[in-house]
Amino acid sequence: MLLQTHYDHENRQMCPEPVEHSRAEARRAQILDAAADCFRQHGFHGASISQISKAAGMSPGHIYHYFENKEAIISAIVASDLERFLTLTAEIRSACNVREAMLARVAEGIDQCLDPLTAGLKLEIVAEASRNPHVAEIVRAADQVCRESLMLTIRDVRGAAGHEDDDAKLAAMVEVLVTMFEGLQIRTIRNENIDRNVVIPLFQNALRNLLDNTP
Amino acid sequence: MLLQTHYDHENRQMCPEPVEHSRAEARRAQILDAAADCFRQHGFHGASISQISKAAGMSPGHIYHYFENKEAIISAIVASDLERFLTLTAEIRSACNVREAMLARVAEGIDQCLDPLTAGLKLEIVAEASRNPHVAEIVRAADQVCRESLMLTIRDVRGAAGHEDDDAKLAAMVEVLVTMFEGLQIRTIRNENIDRNVVIPLFQNALRNLLDNTP
Repeated sequence: MLLQTHYDHENRQMCPEPVEHSRAEARRAQILDAAADCFRQHGFHGASISQISKAAGMSPGHIYHYFENKEAIISAIVASDLERFLTLTAEIRSACNVREAMLARVAEGIDQCLDPLTAGLKLEIVAEASRNPHVAEIVRAADQVCRESLMLTIRDVRGAAGHEDDDAKLAAMVEVLVTMFEGLQIRTIRNENIDRNVVIPLFQNALRNLLDNTP
Repeated sequence: MLLQTHYDHENRQMCPEPVEHSRAEARRAQILDAAADCFRQHGFHGASISQISKAAGMSPGHIYHYFENKEAIISAIVASDLERFLTLTAEIRSACNVREAMLARVAEGIDQCLDPLTAGLKLEIVAEASRNPHVAEIVRAADQVCRESLMLTIRDVRGAAGHEDDDAKLAAMVEVLVTMFEGLQIRTIRNENIDRNVVIPLFQNALRNLLDNTP
């Protein structure tokens, strides 16, 4: 069993999770990892709860104890990605120089998007969203939260440089930024020889242009 | 039956296609349209030859007469997209001012990428490519041809402005350009409220920056 801890705000220290809670979290994580592998390998429709249960080393009944259906598993995968993304943008906004912090983390964002396994899973989820209204709802709700956190981030950068942008303009800048990073998920499949080292400086250049020169 | 014509180079005139050839082309096109709908609605694995034959109003035997399997259908869809793209880049390169021609056609490219039906099909194909080596091979071969035609186009623009870029730099600029447009295929699913009118000027601004200011 994984040893898990959490930060106890009242006592200001890290505490071990209650064993039951921790065990449940570990089981959930185990299912999500197995499901991600199955979705990647067989697609959302090709992957059955029975396959996921084999990959996770649990009974199908155990899987259903944690997740009602495959959509609920997708929802948990999307929520976990969203949490990581919100942590990233919060860290960037807490930097002294938000613009420089954004530029400094471009490489990390590119590497995440170029990872073929991550990209394959994300493409499978968005392809499924294009035909499955339940998955579309999950993906769109998360996307909106992503965009809002990036709007705050870009507003900080632009505000520090004296720009006063309305929400429509901030939203447009966010859209272009997200488009660039998400596009890499397609690129890493369509061009397996894509070279991060040549893409990084051009992305930084594009980000500088977006932040500094959007009229 | 569609009336089809072709350009006869020897006699310098448009001629009707031989009826047999024209009928075969029309049948192929009918199958490709039906298959595209089926792949979009059910995914590559969910769509069977039997479904495609029903959607096309033909027998499965007829489908197999034209296409050996679903991969061969994907190959024909990808080839047809590639042909349209090569026509576009050739038209751009034949303009007096290639840079202005590129900028002028940004909106058209954005509209194509934002069409949710086209995007859904392309995402399904690239998601399938992430796990199916045959589909990956088809997609990657087409992608390379796309990139080569864009390298010629960007070399024309940059050359006219006095830049002397090596292939690696041209390839990097092409990668960023393609990333931006392909990213829109994901965006149109993840954010159904994306507004073409706010994205277009920012894309044009990004393209200008890429063409003029890449060091």
